[in-house]
Amino acid sequence: MKSAVSSLLSSKNSAFSRSFLQHSSKPISQTTFLISNIPQNTRNLYNQSYPKLQIRPISTESSVMASASMSELAREPPALPLPTPPLTKFKIGLCQLSVTPDKERNIKNAQKAIEEAAQKGAQLVLLPEIWNSPYSNDSFPVYAEDIDAGGDASPSTAMLSEVASHLKITIVGGSIPECCGDKLYNTCCVFGSDGTLKAKHRKIHLFDVDIPGKITFMESKTLTAGETPTVVDTDVGRIGIGICYDIRFTELAMIYAARGAHLICYPGAFNMTTGPLHWELSQRARAMDNQLYVATCSPARDPRAGYVAWGHSTLVGPFGEVLATTEHEEDILIAEIDYSILEQRRASLPFTKQRRGDLYKLVDIQRLNSH
Amino acid sequence: MKSAVSSLLSSKNSAFSRSFLQHSSKPISQTTFLISNIPQNTRNLYNQSYPKLQIRPISTESSVMASASMSELAREPPALPLPTPPLTKFKIGLCQLSVTPDKERNIKNAQKAIEEAAQKGAQLVLLPEIWNSPYSNDSFPVYAEDIDAGGDASPSTAMLSEVASHLKITIVGGSIPECCGDKLYNTCCVFGSDGTLKAKHRKIHLFDVDIPGKITFMESKTLTAGETPTVVDTDVGRIGIGICYDIRFTELAMIYAARGAHLICYPGAFNMTTGPLHWELSQRARAMDNQLYVATCSPARDPRAGYVAWGHSTLVGPFGEVLATTEHEEDILIAEIDYSILEQRRASLPFTKQRRGDLYKLVDIQRLNSH
Repeated sequence: MKSAVSSLLSSKNSAFSRSFLQHSSKPISQTTFLISNIPQNTRNLYNQSYPKLQIRPISTESSVMASASMSELAREPPALPLPTPPLTKFKIGLCQLSVTPDKERNIKNAQKAIEEAAQKGAQLVLLPEIWNSPYSNDSFPVYAEDIDAGGDASPSTAMLSEVASHLKITIVGGSIPECCGDKLYNTCCVFGSDGTLKAKHRKIHLFDVDIPGKITFMESKTLTAGETPTVVDTDVGRIGIGICYDIRFTELAMIYAARGAHLICYPGAFNMTTGPLHWELSQRARAMDNQLYVATCSPARDPRAGYVAWGHSTLVGPFGEVLATTEHEEDILIAEIDYSILEQRRASLPFTKQRRGDLYKLVDIQRLNSH
Repeated sequence: MKSAVSSLLSSKNSAFSRSFLQHSSKPISQTTFLISNIPQNTRNLYNQSYPKLQIRPISTESSVMASASMSELAREPPALPLPTPPLTKFKIGLCQLSVTPDKERNIKNAQKAIEEAAQKGAQLVLLPEIWNSPYSNDSFPVYAEDIDAGGDASPSTAMLSEVASHLKITIVGGSIPECCGDKLYNTCCVFGSDGTLKAKHRKIHLFDVDIPGKITFMESKTLTAGETPTVVDTDVGRIGIGICYDIRFTELAMIYAARGAHLICYPGAFNMTTGPLHWELSQRARAMDNQLYVATCSPARDPRAGYVAWGHSTLVGPFGEVLATTEHEEDILIAEIDYSILEQRRASLPFTKQRRGDLYKLVDIQRLNSH
């Protein structure tokens, strides 16, 4: 067993720290060599100021242990460990669809795109926000479907279920206007590879913005906000769902990461003002800060539409790096996801173990209440 | 007083919503005109599915009021309103200094740069992280100063105090290694325009990273982490302070925003790996998400140094837009800050009123305990 001193010396602690260790007597030669690089006037300044200062290196092991338990407190309930995904590497297809006022055509067009993505190897397909209807408060009530009733009451999701089961792929079905009782929602359905509806996310943060002369939109005039964050286990990993403006709220991505998400999918239709300003920046920030994959899917741009979408559907890796992206035309982007790098990235930059739970804490209220 | 129906009709609620209002009978012509834009098969699909559906627009006023109080719960204690700053428009100077092993030279060089920035109109000057010492665990104990003792025990901060008072400017003095008792910190001092030390921020999140083959650094081998977030009221607004790796933790920026900061200053020395990956992205993300200014200041790049800084000191506006930035050489960047746009940006994208305090909550533990 190494002695305490030799253990300290063999660690990466600096030669200068060592030279101030009370009981350390070597290796003098290395210490002297390094000190010789410090200019004389700096050495004088130091020696005058602190003739008797004894600096001890901090025990790295104990400080890491202390901070590890402290970091747990930064999430309430504590963050879940990243689960082992059912598969590590797979292809995702982002279907940047053109959207017209013809709903039947939109459904057929989406089906064709999903089939093409699957044919190109995608095991997960992501659709855009509001892909079966024009994006407008006028259209939402007209195009809305009763997803819970299903069947003829929801031809858009019926198609998604059928095609997911037929192709044996997971579909994060963008979003469509949903009617339920006397309310309307902006809703994303996730279908498993057996065609079952695995999750339904209703947009939590409604798009109510007013940038004078640029873009004014008030979803809350017709839509009701969802009440629940959505994380779903699928054949292609644990996926958190947000819709468009949901990406603005970093808290949502943070609680998804704490719930063990490998990937967050954001169907979204940023516009010609907020698109160039914030679309890519938001995606990259959520991926970097939470060290997970982020995939987004926008409608294709239609300059004649009432609301002109920015396009640029994108896959971002856990370092916040853009892995693949489209332009603004209709497109099907196929890109590879490799979950094995999530642990690597988190080992390199161990944010989750470095958070200061003594200073701040993010509470996931529904997960807390479910405990 | 307008009737309830005419009030609804005169709002921006859609013609389609109106057509489904139970008691609405007009304006039929407009409704009919818009419906004629919907293809026949879509209309049929809709009419078959929901022959009796009555859709009512949601009262916008009450939903906004409800969400305003709900959003308050997303911060504990509730976020403070943005205070009125002592001045609205002013110039900031970012002094991207070259750092050598000669401490006396570093101090003189910093003083010269601050004077030049002030001469060019800067009322706030920001210095880099560890500007009086090489950035290494070897150097920290040798160059550390006893800031609390002051005077000869801290020539670097003595200079900052003197020059702030002489030039009547605010200085966010980057950071220097601080010794206090038997501990070392990475510490930023803020001096008011009368030369008083207004705040001292000790880096809260130590830089312990390991990207194999790229960059490995363990500040915790020599340094101790600070215990307190720092927000300080100055002649140039309310400023939150973070040092380098502190920028990685979005929670810190979020609690600074909730404490009413106009600006967050991050002295930082990202490196040749994390610099291109994350330096600008982190700054822009913090500014965009928290709708405030972010200013960063790096040492100039020295390719011969043990730790090579990325440079690229930057000012970012509250839309996450880069307003001014340097390259990697020694440089003094002068840029304008205009706090009047903070309220504009927050009115356009009212995140603070849209947060879902029923779903998540960020707790500022020290502010909570001080209540």
